[in-house]
Amino acid sequence: MKSKEYAALKEQLENSLLNWLPAVPDESRTLYDAMKYSLMAGGKRMRGVLCLAGAEFAGLPADAVMPFACAIEYIQTYSLIHDDLPALDNDDLRRGKPTNHKVFGEDMAILAGDGLLSATFETMAAHLVRISGSAEYKGRISDFISSNYIIAAGVGVGGMVAGQVTDVQNAGKDLEPDLLDYIHMHKTADFIRAAVLSGLIAGGADPGVISDFERYAVNMGIAFQVVDDIADGDQTDECSYVTLHGMEESKKRAAELISTARKAIEKYGERAVIYNDILDSLEVQIK
Amino acid sequence: MKSKEYAALKEQLENSLLNWLPAVPDESRTLYDAMKYSLMAGGKRMRGVLCLAGAEFAGLPADAVMPFACAIEYIQTYSLIHDDLPALDNDDLRRGKPTNHKVFGEDMAILAGDGLLSATFETMAAHLVRISGSAEYKGRISDFISSNYIIAAGVGVGGMVAGQVTDVQNAGKDLEPDLLDYIHMHKTADFIRAAVLSGLIAGGADPGVISDFERYAVNMGIAFQVVDDIADGDQTDECSYVTLHGMEESKKRAAELISTARKAIEKYGERAVIYNDILDSLEVQIK
Repeated sequence: MKSKEYAALKEQLENSLLNWLPAVPDESRTLYDAMKYSLMAGGKRMRGVLCLAGAEFAGLPADAVMPFACAIEYIQTYSLIHDDLPALDNDDLRRGKPTNHKVFGEDMAILAGDGLLSATFETMAAHLVRISGSAEYKGRISDFISSNYIIAAGVGVGGMVAGQVTDVQNAGKDLEPDLLDYIHMHKTADFIRAAVLSGLIAGGADPGVISDFERYAVNMGIAFQVVDDIADGDQTDECSYVTLHGMEESKKRAAELISTARKAIEKYGERAVIYNDILDSLEVQIK
Repeated sequence: MKSKEYAALKEQLENSLLNWLPAVPDESRTLYDAMKYSLMAGGKRMRGVLCLAGAEFAGLPADAVMPFACAIEYIQTYSLIHDDLPALDNDDLRRGKPTNHKVFGEDMAILAGDGLLSATFETMAAHLVRISGSAEYKGRISDFISSNYIIAAGVGVGGMVAGQVTDVQNAGKDLEPDLLDYIHMHKTADFIRAAVLSGLIAGGADPGVISDFERYAVNMGIAFQVVDDIADGDQTDECSYVTLHGMEESKKRAAELISTARKAIEKYGERAVIYNDILDSLEVQIK
């Protein structure tokens, strides 16, 4: 993901993440510190960038959806903090740094995750108030309302949380291929799909465009998870695409998904450079 | 809280709670079961009823805000599930029944809480889509957008979560009176204030009405917490209004708050019956 376009949006997004976080009173400073610790711990910011890219693709300035893109990163961060908890994956390190509960304690990590998910809800709600009162966007409020909904549904109990629950319930077990696909679809692809569509919908993209990018998003989202499993290798205790189907088959499947995603948006050429960059960066990992 | 009006709204609300919960796929049935277990465990439903009552007071049918009222109860339930976790209050029982993590395990309880908070966001987002597309309410979408925001802000990192963090950080310590007031204001009163205002704002109530009910809500919300502390008595390890100020002073303070709340809405007479019922039920507990 090295295009100038991707890097520029990522920088804009990272410069905005703390600005759009709702204020925390001084008396509860630890909550702010704990949220900030994980929020600013780096990462590709792929989901937030995809939201911004969608808005620009549809003709809006990225700033018009910046609070939504930040909120998407708050969701991503909350889900990682809670995933890492002792009662779930019990991870001590993330991206080479101690996980949130190792630094702030389990109680604060639970509350920092709750805080970030609440901040998602509030930041998006505040942006709807702003758009609703803005002369420039007032007539487009229903597009922003739809975008708000697509994000909520993608990360909710029919989306990301459902996938996470089934993943946790089956930890350490051999899975039926269908159930592993179910987990990948919901835990990973539903959120990526929501991120891809959120900016396009807020920008009022045509149904045909949305349908093309939806095909891109679902295929890229599953490819993203299969490539992640490939990176983890076959020496893992956890059931993964690789442990279930073997390394060769996994690479073949990832290549197919990437190819399908690429074709879905082929006709947009250079306008879709960020989307193709993401596919390129996945492709490199299966070579 | 025995008026026919309160009981009728409570019944309508309870009959709607599962209907408005976003669908959970069959593969993740345990998530649904865990959310339902705590959601349907009873309680006064005061916050959800206050949302419905506000809408009716402002001239809307209760059904017009029912998804918001249900979402408010999802928030209340998520906060109780997470509060009860071993890393937080470590409670085994709530309302005489085993707590969520005792039945479903700590991992599922964390995810059921996350699911209910996500469901709040999604249920409210879906209702905004519905209202935005409705011929009947379309012109009033900005009132619903403001209501959505007031709820999000009340339970967020400047509201309920902030109070909860400071409460947890000071568990077992003697507090300065100001800090205890801070905790009560944010942990308890901010959410109650949001519930009271949500229905009124969605219904387009006048600023004067909103201001009166805001004064009611803040005073009733703090009274609610002081009365809760009074019910817990003075033989508790936790710092409370009673351990800090004594039983007599606590009762006096609660009576003052109830009286201020009552005066704030006195002029609305019989139209405010539900609101006065709530004050009556608090008053009974300090006699």
